[in-house]
Amino acid sequence: MDMSRDNREIDFEEVKQSLIKYLNEENLDGFREIFMDLHNYEQGEIYQALTDEEKNTLYKFLSPEEVSDFFDLLELEADEYEELLDKIDARYAAHIIGAMQYDNAVDILNEISREKMTTYLPLMDKEDAVEIRSLMNYEEDTAGGIMTTEVVSINSLMTVREAMRYLKEVAPESEMIYYLFVTDPDNHLAGIISLRELIVADDDEYIGDVMTERVVSVRVSDDQEEVAQIVRDYDFLAVPVVDFQDHLVGIITADDIMDVIHEEAGEDYSRLAGMSDNESTSDTAMETAKKRLPWLIGLTFMGMITAWMLSFFEDTLARVVLLSAFIPVISGMAGNTGTQSLAVAIRGISTGEIKESSKIKLAGRELGSGFITGLACGIVIFLIIIVMYREPVLGIIVSGSLLASMSVATIIGTVIPLLMNKAGIDPAIASGPFITTANDIISLLIYFGLANVFMSSLL
Amino acid sequence: MDMSRDNREIDFEEVKQSLIKYLNEENLDGFREIFMDLHNYEQGEIYQALTDEEKNTLYKFLSPEEVSDFFDLLELEADEYEELLDKIDARYAAHIIGAMQYDNAVDILNEISREKMTTYLPLMDKEDAVEIRSLMNYEEDTAGGIMTTEVVSINSLMTVREAMRYLKEVAPESEMIYYLFVTDPDNHLAGIISLRELIVADDDEYIGDVMTERVVSVRVSDDQEEVAQIVRDYDFLAVPVVDFQDHLVGIITADDIMDVIHEEAGEDYSRLAGMSDNESTSDTAMETAKKRLPWLIGLTFMGMITAWMLSFFEDTLARVVLLSAFIPVISGMAGNTGTQSLAVAIRGISTGEIKESSKIKLAGRELGSGFITGLACGIVIFLIIIVMYREPVLGIIVSGSLLASMSVATIIGTVIPLLMNKAGIDPAIASGPFITTANDIISLLIYFGLANVFMSSLL
Repeated sequence: MDMSRDNREIDFEEVKQSLIKYLNEENLDGFREIFMDLHNYEQGEIYQALTDEEKNTLYKFLSPEEVSDFFDLLELEADEYEELLDKIDARYAAHIIGAMQYDNAVDILNEISREKMTTYLPLMDKEDAVEIRSLMNYEEDTAGGIMTTEVVSINSLMTVREAMRYLKEVAPESEMIYYLFVTDPDNHLAGIISLRELIVADDDEYIGDVMTERVVSVRVSDDQEEVAQIVRDYDFLAVPVVDFQDHLVGIITADDIMDVIHEEAGEDYSRLAGMSDNESTSDTAMETAKKRLPWLIGLTFMGMITAWMLSFFEDTLARVVLLSAFIPVISGMAGNTGTQSLAVAIRGISTGEIKESSKIKLAGRELGSGFITGLACGIVIFLIIIVMYREPVLGIIVSGSLLASMSVATIIGTVIPLLMNKAGIDPAIASGPFITTANDIISLLIYFGLANVFMSSLL
Repeated sequence: MDMSRDNREIDFEEVKQSLIKYLNEENLDGFREIFMDLHNYEQGEIYQALTDEEKNTLYKFLSPEEVSDFFDLLELEADEYEELLDKIDARYAAHIIGAMQYDNAVDILNEISREKMTTYLPLMDKEDAVEIRSLMNYEEDTAGGIMTTEVVSINSLMTVREAMRYLKEVAPESEMIYYLFVTDPDNHLAGIISLRELIVADDDEYIGDVMTERVVSVRVSDDQEEVAQIVRDYDFLAVPVVDFQDHLVGIITADDIMDVIHEEAGEDYSRLAGMSDNESTSDTAMETAKKRLPWLIGLTFMGMITAWMLSFFEDTLARVVLLSAFIPVISGMAGNTGTQSLAVAIRGISTGEIKESSKIKLAGRELGSGFITGLACGIVIFLIIIVMYREPVLGIIVSGSLLASMSVATIIGTVIPLLMNKAGIDPAIASGPFITTANDIISLLIYFGLANVFMSSLL
């Protein structure tokens, strides 16, 4: 049965309804026959549509291992997992966690309360608990934090035939069997062979003779974004993780990398819009407002600084009222160019494209671009003012301010996030609205400063 | 030899220097011995560091197929590939293109001039040309545009042993061998079996008995972003592509999906910042300015609309000069909330998270959130104005405008991109700066409208 997108949705709704019916009728066989045939992701979708009571029946129908298979694909936040787990018998819940992919299990255990964590760990299979405990030491956003320890490693003295036989045995419980890692007796990573190469190779050859010795690996402490870059560059399906003594400790698979790329891009994106990253389209208006409010209140205060500053220029404004008509265009254009520079800097920092040596070059490039675009926009606005108002001095003030503030805005947009990053401050603070508001203040100071200088000619 | 990140860079520089030396000495054996041992990605890195002359020597040392292997991983823009290909003998170049992964070959051929395309195609191996021609009919951003036709398909009457033997034969020339697709005699997709399942299965079993019949597939015309979502949800390493009669026509692999996720996220991001997507950190100031200028000039004109509009309120402004002090905070806050709503809408549209039915719900949610945050910020600003200026009427005007314009801004930020998307207009136009400037105009109209109403109380 082919399940292309169009008929999948219709068909899926039917399947869901029958499964819910079976749960309510407590029909174990009927339920399992259909449910176990679904992809884990689809199982998860159905699970999430169930009532608490139906979920409880499902736990009776399935083993913790079977539940863990679709728990792995739910991709919930840790607190949402916690909410689900709280309603399940602790021993059963512990077994679900233990049977999940270790990287996912660790994410959950790291987020729930210490008390609950220490309840679950002793209730798991000992082997799972040991692996999970060892993974819990790594930072969340590093290679160690996203790797799994379920890796297939073989030794170089095996023949291809032996390796295939071994693979047959371990395949069911390994997350990724398409790369086999060759280790020496001290568990140092000595080579790699893909299952593709293994299949093509002669059965009697030694692994040591057919493996690739140049293995690209990452360190446990490497940032997840760097890891993603390597996997994407090399078109890998997985990359091995080594510790500081080059022992093989785990593997990071393509599906985890896709999530990293998605997640990191989302973070950059949210920062540019001045939002928290945990917004969801299913939030209510009140939830959305609550998440955005801290930012917006902060920006209101910053905006009041602008208002307070402008009130010093009340005299200037009173004498040449037309000046206020250009406040929005000057602050707006400074905001636009500043945001563009900020976007380049944020992206460059998070993809690692901006190195220490290239920072000054980038700032210079942005300043140059700010100057050129400021000059062009300044000329345009000068001509418009001449035509509309026949006020050359006003034209000079507005276009001069535009040129200066667009140049400064590019520098602010580039340098602030780079400095923050260097100082180790979470550059999330250098978000779009913050930079824009800062540029507002500076651009208006330039504007009124210039206006005051030319005041005599304006009257 | 382990190549973790730290020592990779040092080691790599040495390798590069020896290779360049061998090229200049025309030492074929020395060059090939080291070069062929590198990963294709690394080969590409070295290739890109070569002078034109060194590249010419490299072409003499390598077959077009060997060159194509690293050309696949260069991930250049089509015009950059074109520049490289122009300097190579046409027959050799045609063979490089023909030996690349078909999806990449199509990307290049679609972008170069028709004339060159028609030069290269007849010079390729006939089989390659046929496959590539058939792929050239698909739109770039669809499943058809990113798939490759090099898929391993078997029939359900084979035994596991036969399938393995067949796989051994075709593995060297197939892009993805970890999923085998089972087709009926009419090439309809009938099932799927992963290499993992194949390895675990008994040698004498029939494929038809061990395959999974529920295959998740995508259609050639599906949007690439939808495809990425499915692959990410299901944690697939690849997904089959079928045509409208459910014939298997190709496969999309995880590495292509990673690029799609990266690319689409970059597009959303650039749109929010009002930049073109083809900016590069290696551009000069002039190149950067050129790319940004059309946008900025357009925004200057829009800004002048604001200035022109404000000049109608010259009388109001002349009488209550303090009013102009709050122009930046009101337009700024409307801009901030509008951008947040826009970010949610852009992301929702491009990930397909926003369905037809949920559009009104989303607009309502955003409006609600705009109202709540506007109310909160309005109260804050009212209190500040009372304390700072002791002007309750001014406080009411400013906070009332803030409330109204933040509410309206959320609606503008949500509805404009949704409408544009519905009307089939490229919603790239609804970029951050455009929405911000539109919100500027509206918020200031609200502000001065309100000020005029209360004018008598202000004097």
